[in-house]
Amino acid sequence: MLEKFKIHIAQNFPFFDGKKMLLATSGGLDSMVLLHLFQQLYFDIAIAHCNFQLRGIESFGDQNFVQNYALVNTIPIFVTQFDTKAFAADYKISTQVAARELRYNWFYELLETEKYDFILTAHHADDNLETFLINLSRGTGLEGFTGIPQQNDKVIRPILSFSRQEIENYAKENGIQWREDSSNASDKYLRNKIRHHLIPILKELNPNFISSFQKTQNYLQEAQVMVEDATIMIYQQVAKEQGDGTIHFDLKKLQQLPNFKSYLYQWLKEYGFSAWDDIYDLAEGQSGKQVFSAEFRLLKDRNFLILSPVNFVTNEKEFLLDKEQHEVNIPLKLSFCKVSDISAVSNSAIFVDEDKLQFPLLLRRWREGDYFQPFGMEGKSKKVSKFFKDEKLSLLEKENVWILCSNDQIVWIVGMRQDDRFRIENTTKNILKIQLG
Amino acid sequence: MLEKFKIHIAQNFPFFDGKKMLLATSGGLDSMVLLHLFQQLYFDIAIAHCNFQLRGIESFGDQNFVQNYALVNTIPIFVTQFDTKAFAADYKISTQVAARELRYNWFYELLETEKYDFILTAHHADDNLETFLINLSRGTGLEGFTGIPQQNDKVIRPILSFSRQEIENYAKENGIQWREDSSNASDKYLRNKIRHHLIPILKELNPNFISSFQKTQNYLQEAQVMVEDATIMIYQQVAKEQGDGTIHFDLKKLQQLPNFKSYLYQWLKEYGFSAWDDIYDLAEGQSGKQVFSAEFRLLKDRNFLILSPVNFVTNEKEFLLDKEQHEVNIPLKLSFCKVSDISAVSNSAIFVDEDKLQFPLLLRRWREGDYFQPFGMEGKSKKVSKFFKDEKLSLLEKENVWILCSNDQIVWIVGMRQDDRFRIENTTKNILKIQLG
Repeated sequence: MLEKFKIHIAQNFPFFDGKKMLLATSGGLDSMVLLHLFQQLYFDIAIAHCNFQLRGIESFGDQNFVQNYALVNTIPIFVTQFDTKAFAADYKISTQVAARELRYNWFYELLETEKYDFILTAHHADDNLETFLINLSRGTGLEGFTGIPQQNDKVIRPILSFSRQEIENYAKENGIQWREDSSNASDKYLRNKIRHHLIPILKELNPNFISSFQKTQNYLQEAQVMVEDATIMIYQQVAKEQGDGTIHFDLKKLQQLPNFKSYLYQWLKEYGFSAWDDIYDLAEGQSGKQVFSAEFRLLKDRNFLILSPVNFVTNEKEFLLDKEQHEVNIPLKLSFCKVSDISAVSNSAIFVDEDKLQFPLLLRRWREGDYFQPFGMEGKSKKVSKFFKDEKLSLLEKENVWILCSNDQIVWIVGMRQDDRFRIENTTKNILKIQLG
Repeated sequence: MLEKFKIHIAQNFPFFDGKKMLLATSGGLDSMVLLHLFQQLYFDIAIAHCNFQLRGIESFGDQNFVQNYALVNTIPIFVTQFDTKAFAADYKISTQVAARELRYNWFYELLETEKYDFILTAHHADDNLETFLINLSRGTGLEGFTGIPQQNDKVIRPILSFSRQEIENYAKENGIQWREDSSNASDKYLRNKIRHHLIPILKELNPNFISSFQKTQNYLQEAQVMVEDATIMIYQQVAKEQGDGTIHFDLKKLQQLPNFKSYLYQWLKEYGFSAWDDIYDLAEGQSGKQVFSAEFRLLKDRNFLILSPVNFVTNEKEFLLDKEQHEVNIPLKLSFCKVSDISAVSNSAIFVDEDKLQFPLLLRRWREGDYFQPFGMEGKSKKVSKFFKDEKLSLLEKENVWILCSNDQIVWIVGMRQDDRFRIENTTKNILKIQLG
């Protein structure tokens, strides 16, 4: 295996020359073989060992084993211990996910602080095959079939194209010692079943199975990248990221695609949505309907689906403003100052007769049934909802409007229109300028 | 199964109402169950049976069995016999591919002539699963994992979501009879191994395996459509179909994509190419290099890959033209006629002094070393290759130029430039107009 390995390294990782390598070493068969192989190559290597403290005394046994190996072989070593279970509980994730998170965070930290170039892990071909078959048995999408890549940023798997058999043989031939890992029992049951019963049949049907499987997986990886290409290209045609942090999906364009649901799925999965049927119905459903994930919501608004953070809307809140306050920052930035005359009028500033106001002022969302007297309409009343309609506000935009009130009367539809009742008149003595932003 | 089947039909094929169905019926278990199910639905059905004559007396036994069933049940029946082996030999295809080709051609013919609406086949969930695992064992790309679709144009598989077990149970419960098919032994060996050894393990690992596998396959089908979307979108950005039947791929645009090889593969596979490494090298290789498939060639020409039919170029051929010929059609259309005066001059017609010509004229490709005296250059000689370069002709365009010669002297670079030596002069008595197209 060593000769094949050397050629493999030269062909696949020509950039290894002169680099400093951090080898993730659990003490198990695969990582001990990887370590032994790299010792033969005289690279500038170090060992990184994580003690996840998941198997009590056994975990410390692994740690001692690896530390001892490093000592005997005079290899620099970094060791850390994690309270994996507490971390998993804190973040409500599985122990497995927690361990991965902790491990890679620490590896990347070490790269930085200790000036190493790459992290090397000992995944091999059978790992990918087993994961493929585990995912097949459970049901999966294309992502579940593409496997771990040979390189992902600074993490490199130099023996990913080698089989378990080759690795075992190498260990035997070179008298390599390792620690058996008894963890991960539930996954191991499935993995062992697959390893001992499924894979031998596949290898019997095709003696070159492992190598043809690697080609298969390469093809699937290529297909996955093309799926991502399509996802991005269609996104560029259909989605518009607004300045306010929302994304508008143009349904007219989207629904021209017979497979628009596939694209919605690809775009929205990273926002934590899971009610896919509801989302697909939304596209064809009534304006105003919405679907939520933990942190996002998708709103159907006429010809658009609008994606926004859930906390984007704080409908329930009201804010009181005292007379002495000269500035507000929450829920939006407003400043109040006395002026002697009216200067430039704009949507972002109004001038009111301070003596007509009754403090504290109230800043709130609009409500169904709100009326006001739009400035410049000679005292005529208008429903706020009608005003919004005339201004062609989307549902989301409406929800984000703030209303400044004095004693239940609207003073300002903030940023849009002042009320006539509080305007400056000839008799006004104290002019208050209220400025947005 | 009947109740589940009825619901399935109502939900998935609401358009079946009032339609006429042609049931592909081999006489095997699956097709006899499909037939029995449709008899319970009182659809307007007929049987279509193909006798491929691949198993001698057995094939005729199947035919008799199906014909007898149709007679007893008073179902209209269409039967045909194919010389499948001869067809396969004629077209150099496998017996299996030949049988499929013959079968579907005949089905579609029947739809037309006998006014049926749909062809129904009896593929079921285990067929797709077995094919998936066969392809996995051999190595495949995403296409090999997507399975047969439930509907493909007018071919519908109404029991594709039912398992073999359900079908067998239904056959038992309803005392349905069928013929065992002993054909396809080689594929059957693999299929049986997979059916009896692999699939039971997968079902043991996950009792809902068949249904989660169907979801898996749906996801993969969606991914496959997105791959096709990407293939088309990138093609539109990179490829230009020329009027002359060639396709030019812009390498500068193409190579901006890190995965451009995936796209080349998708575009070119249907042209019968297989030397993929050579093709990928071509993209980075020297101008003038080319790769061939049986019927096409791909030529690297500066910043382009040019795809053209192989027979596009007939370099070796020369054509002699007699004085009596007034028209040529091969290798291109030329007409000769005497005129009294020069009319409109264009690239597609020249006027020459007939008496300067020496018949027969010769029509041939250009050769390295060809010289001519371009019209309007006062008798100066020029290398044809230099002329082409100045005209910015691509390699392929050069190869497609024809040259008209008289006694080894160039008269016309057809469609491009006349030679000065054969032009009309004051002394000319007989004017010959040579017209292209």
